[in-house]
Amino acid sequence: MSVQLKTTTTVATSRSFKEDRIWLNGKEEDITHPRLQSCLREIRRLARKRHNDGDATSTELTGLSQKVHICSVNNFPTAAGLASSAAGFACLVYSLAQSFGVEGELSGVARQGSGSACRSMYGGFVQWIMGNQEDGKDSLAQQVEPESHWPELRILVLVANAERKPVGSTSGMQTSVQTSCLLKHRAESVVPHRMEEMIKAVRGRDFPAFAELTMKDSNQFHATCLDTYPPIFYLNRVSQQVIHLVHRYNRHYGETRVAYSFDAGPNAVIFTLQQHVPEFVHFIQHFFPPETNGEDFIKGLPVKRAAVSEQLKQSVGLEPMPKGINYIISTKAGPGPRVVKDPSLHLLSPDGFPKL
Amino acid sequence: MSVQLKTTTTVATSRSFKEDRIWLNGKEEDITHPRLQSCLREIRRLARKRHNDGDATSTELTGLSQKVHICSVNNFPTAAGLASSAAGFACLVYSLAQSFGVEGELSGVARQGSGSACRSMYGGFVQWIMGNQEDGKDSLAQQVEPESHWPELRILVLVANAERKPVGSTSGMQTSVQTSCLLKHRAESVVPHRMEEMIKAVRGRDFPAFAELTMKDSNQFHATCLDTYPPIFYLNRVSQQVIHLVHRYNRHYGETRVAYSFDAGPNAVIFTLQQHVPEFVHFIQHFFPPETNGEDFIKGLPVKRAAVSEQLKQSVGLEPMPKGINYIISTKAGPGPRVVKDPSLHLLSPDGFPKL
Repeated sequence: MSVQLKTTTTVATSRSFKEDRIWLNGKEEDITHPRLQSCLREIRRLARKRHNDGDATSTELTGLSQKVHICSVNNFPTAAGLASSAAGFACLVYSLAQSFGVEGELSGVARQGSGSACRSMYGGFVQWIMGNQEDGKDSLAQQVEPESHWPELRILVLVANAERKPVGSTSGMQTSVQTSCLLKHRAESVVPHRMEEMIKAVRGRDFPAFAELTMKDSNQFHATCLDTYPPIFYLNRVSQQVIHLVHRYNRHYGETRVAYSFDAGPNAVIFTLQQHVPEFVHFIQHFFPPETNGEDFIKGLPVKRAAVSEQLKQSVGLEPMPKGINYIISTKAGPGPRVVKDPSLHLLSPDGFPKL
Repeated sequence: MSVQLKTTTTVATSRSFKEDRIWLNGKEEDITHPRLQSCLREIRRLARKRHNDGDATSTELTGLSQKVHICSVNNFPTAAGLASSAAGFACLVYSLAQSFGVEGELSGVARQGSGSACRSMYGGFVQWIMGNQEDGKDSLAQQVEPESHWPELRILVLVANAERKPVGSTSGMQTSVQTSCLLKHRAESVVPHRMEEMIKAVRGRDFPAFAELTMKDSNQFHATCLDTYPPIFYLNRVSQQVIHLVHRYNRHYGETRVAYSFDAGPNAVIFTLQQHVPEFVHFIQHFFPPETNGEDFIKGLPVKRAAVSEQLKQSVGLEPMPKGINYIISTKAGPGPRVVKDPSLHLLSPDGFPKL
């Protein structure tokens, strides 16, 4: 979680509630969604276990027999490929656990909501351990370093303008597991070693090593998507241009100053060190001229103005792609889920319904 | 080689020629090009060997001590990613061998001009054997079946409109070999088995098996390009749309009627059976509305008019992409290199210079 990409969730239990209900970003959603039900069931089971062990307080016990109202909002666009469901499920599981007095390792519960949600249960730099069990129960997350470990590391999310509706790729990862022989090789023979290297790079704050691993691993993930049958494309022409720009930027300076990573969508997540942020942001703005004057182009942490030299532009040798990027979110690694104390920030009013 | 995609080469030797010279598509090119020199040197070496073995005729012997003029034309656009250099080098090596009286296995010589040229030394369905030797000398081509084996099999080349200049990918394959760990796995563990399956599918004229292998192998090749560092992209948005269209076309009919394959460029090579050509061509024309009325849209073998049903268009559910494809070349597997007897078709006039 980072302050610029944040999910807030309020959970309330009451005798007066007739049924479990959930509101996401102002709209009531279907509580019977299987992954949501898994999380709810699992937290209640853990709470009951705690009760039977005699560790629960009386408030928590009361809550356990009551229905729950859940209200959750993201301060960033959902379904933009920015892992909103990971953040959402992590925050949900944390909030439910707080409400029902459940403690301990919760990344396994979050994983039942959304695989990568287990990672979002921690702040800073997190490792998702594959695990060996068939049922995935030992597939848990673990913090490698807290967010304070590498404060110079900065993140820029380049939100791509999807000109065309993306072609559906539901259950993409499952199809990949079933059909891509390169994915099998990647999981067995490539990832374990890279994971070790990555932890070493993060621990040693070795940006070039971190950057190269990040880019190679992103590319390899998308390679396995292409090796899926039928193939899955997440990278569009904007993504391809970003990839070329990053490599040419680094080549111009003769060192790896910037890295890209793409999840299941066209938006680039850029990693760089604080000192390079202003130039790189304006470099991107040059090659993706925005529709406006660039006022709303940069969101999140403030970015200083910077010039982009003619030599740099020329050594890149690519044509600008107008409106290819809608905006940039400037951010950095943040903490894991936290309890919000200020009641004015709670999303449910005392009657247990959304404030808005 | 197919009649619709053809290279013609004329070779002449004469006492009066001062030096070796070459003209490609009407323009004199640099004869000192290393790959060209390799082919010339190797053919002359084989001719000398033949001479020393006492097998050469007197005309051939005279030619051996003289300089050579070479003139070559393609009847299709070069550098459009249609393997023009493979066809060119195969035709060159064949013509030189004819001229110098060299016989026997020549795919090893052609391979020195362009790797895949070894395949173009034969007609029909050809296998390129990887070989085991470090120097690649046993990496040769072999005909699996002649072109008469599967006459219903048809080929459509969809020449993509490259909106943007492609980003350079010189020596792409070499970089892939050096940097992609997925390529290593593919070469060692995937290709050998697929090659066997492919030969079986061709021999048995099993279109669905042939088609699925073709598509999977094309996708995996492009996956290894993406796994290359820095990554190489040959598939653009037009290519991606073609891929989606083929899968959805097949899904609509509940059987694999059409397959795609992409070489080092955005143009699709489509394989299908004769009976599906008219509908599929007009299906493509619907989803890539051409600039003109479609008069020059289809080149090569004639294609009958056909209607595309509304159900098919709807079940595809993609937006048309105007002008995405410049034209379609309709063709089929053809013979290997042949001697052109008619002197009016020779490209050099009796003085040894290009006719034009």
